Amino acid sequence: MTAYHPLTEAEAIQYARTLPDLFTAGSELVSREIGDGNLNLVFHISEPATGKSIILKQALPYAKVVGESWPLTLDRARIESEALIIQESLCPELVPHVHAYVPELALTVMQDLSDHVIMRRGLMESNRYPLFAGHIGHFLAHTLFYTSDLGMNQQEKKERVKRFINPELCKITEDLIFDDPYMDSPNNDVPPAIRDAVEAVWSDAELHLEVAILREKFLTHAQALLHGDLHTGSIFIKPDSTKVIDPEFAYYGPMGFDIGAIFANLLLHYASREGWDKDAAARADFRGYLTATLREAWTAFEKEFRSLWDRHGVDRMAKTPGYQDWYIQQVLRDTFGFTGSKMVRRVHGLAQVADINKLEDAAAKERAQRIALAIGTALIKFNRQASSIEEMINIADSAVR
Amino acid sequence: MTAYHPLTEAEAIQYARTLPDLFTAGSELVSREIGDGNLNLVFHISEPATGKSIILKQALPYAKVVGESWPLTLDRARIESEALIIQESLCPELVPHVHAYVPELALTVMQDLSDHVIMRRGLMESNRYPLFAGHIGHFLAHTLFYTSDLGMNQQEKKERVKRFINPELCKITEDLIFDDPYMDSPNNDVPPAIRDAVEAVWSDAELHLEVAILREKFLTHAQALLHGDLHTGSIFIKPDSTKVIDPEFAYYGPMGFDIGAIFANLLLHYASREGWDKDAAARADFRGYLTATLREAWTAFEKEFRSLWDRHGVDRMAKTPGYQDWYIQQVLRDTFGFTGSKMVRRVHGLAQVADINKLEDAAAKERAQRIALAIGTALIKFNRQASSIEEMINIADSAVR
Repeated sequence: MTAYHPLTEAEAIQYARTLPDLFTAGSELVSREIGDGNLNLVFHISEPATGKSIILKQALPYAKVVGESWPLTLDRARIESEALIIQESLCPELVPHVHAYVPELALTVMQDLSDHVIMRRGLMESNRYPLFAGHIGHFLAHTLFYTSDLGMNQQEKKERVKRFINPELCKITEDLIFDDPYMDSPNNDVPPAIRDAVEAVWSDAELHLEVAILREKFLTHAQALLHGDLHTGSIFIKPDSTKVIDPEFAYYGPMGFDIGAIFANLLLHYASREGWDKDAAARADFRGYLTATLREAWTAFEKEFRSLWDRHGVDRMAKTPGYQDWYIQQVLRDTFGFTGSKMVRRVHGLAQVADINKLEDAAAKERAQRIALAIGTALIKFNRQASSIEEMINIADSAVR
Repeated sequence: MTAYHPLTEAEAIQYARTLPDLFTAGSELVSREIGDGNLNLVFHISEPATGKSIILKQALPYAKVVGESWPLTLDRARIESEALIIQESLCPELVPHVHAYVPELALTVMQDLSDHVIMRRGLMESNRYPLFAGHIGHFLAHTLFYTSDLGMNQQEKKERVKRFINPELCKITEDLIFDDPYMDSPNNDVPPAIRDAVEAVWSDAELHLEVAILREKFLTHAQALLHGDLHTGSIFIKPDSTKVIDPEFAYYGPMGFDIGAIFANLLLHYASREGWDKDAAARADFRGYLTATLREAWTAFEKEFRSLWDRHGVDRMAKTPGYQDWYIQQVLRDTFGFTGSKMVRRVHGLAQVADINKLEDAAAKERAQRIALAIGTALIKFNRQASSIEEMINIADSAVR
């Protein structure tokens, strides 16, 4: 089992038996392959006698997206497991525990989170998660601060930048988020009903300049170790627990890109409420919950980040008066821009979101798509002037008024 | 001779004999060690019979600065030779040719430039180099453009960022340029005559904020492969030829840092003319030559950089209207800030410049130091508002009016 090959379920069970201190020797183990088969195999291995279970996640050497298949480095399994281990050291409650990583098989053995649900699905079922804002604010503050020049030795940080150079997965982001949605690319999947609005995006010079500037930051600004793909499909949740998973896009980039990924997906869901609520009052109420979550997440992030900076900063010059305020303002501005970028690509780009695409009422779906585009483009255009998270909420609320 | 050890002159000759197609078999070779012994051994190997010669540069595993010695990675020899080879591929006329690199000895064999002089010394002898501005503008435009996301494949660029992670040498810059000069550090060497002006630097909150922001760019902005130490002591020159040497500080950083290094050293020399010229008219004339050189170097850089962008850009999105202008403006602003930072550290920091320190007239030297500090601090404070290179020249000329 040492040379790389996609594992069978029998091999997955066989491997699971070799892990120390997990299962009872000789007892029956059951495997279920629960991945979507596009990028990874995911085996759920359980021991019916005790109820114990684990996940074996194995990277596949290709990506399948919309029928196409292209080769994709297995090194992403190393990046994912190393990122998870760093995140666990900083926020032990907020990521799955990694039991083992087997480089030659591109295999990560991790905690089973089957008692959680994917947050995107939870929101689509109109569930609310009152602890989520605090959890994600904490996750962002700790993972971004402690992997940046503010919170770790600046020479060790450079070695870490090196370990997380991730060209193939960054290229997916560079193309699918920052490039294709702004031109008539075959990689787009344009909903016919909103073609007029998408064509307006393709011809909006002001928008294109801001996106080019945001992409330059994504390409060059090695500020902190990002999760890199922090949407609500990368979050397992239940009322009392939040777990951030799947950091295979991890690399050193601008902090606002991770924060913006969360906010974009909250606001995409905000747009999608056009179709999920029975009446206007229920819709306004759920949207109020979403914007309150966004506000609370930013506030928690900012408060904890500033507190870490004041209490645990390793950098003499970071105490320079005015520097912290300048820094937070830049992160806020980046957050506006990346929130917008991550919304726009989800409306007519290659990878869209179930929140909107699962809406059955065509009119509601079209309204949701137009709202998402309106919020996304407005945030992108406003990003370099932003000064408060309230402005983001105002932009969202204006789009549905 | 395979395990690392500092070479003797006899070993250097012995090694030179093994190089193909250089010297005549069996002929006499002469070696002279011409390094300053602080960081590297530099052997000049010549063949009196033919006049042929080469340089063997060997990194030492420590740095000696002002009597102190600290360990320093030999990997800098790899970084230097790889940077030289990349630069030679982009600007063959403007760097020494590398004949060979021997990793296990941290040894680079390169073209002998003994017919050139170090530019700092040339300027101190009041020589003028009319071709220099064009040469250095060309060097900057080509090395910065073609190693950035604008001029090379963006995935290959990330692999190159990885190869040029250079923590130890970056740390020297981070401390000696961006930190020590702004506080009462034992690493400074404060000229007693200007202690009042230096103390003003130590207590200037506006200045400290700008320096902290500039240092953040140095730490995080992986824009292009920099030379990293591009002062007039790293340039060999004669009237018809310019050669940039010693890129051991090479790493991926902000373009303005290399441009600023050149401009800072032109302006430090501008300040030092207090002591080099016989009368005010001669002084004004030489200063006019220096500011004309600075203007012409920026203009050549900008013109060539824009031309490469338009003709050889590899990035569809770089053609976005307004993006090139925005990009150049950021580089200009960074250039102001880094020019200022590189001036201030040379007045009262650990490593100062001969242009000023060799002045024999104490009053002239003090005036030069005060002028350099005035220009440097003004450029730093102005950096984020800069819009034209003329503003830099105005700031310089105002300081001597």
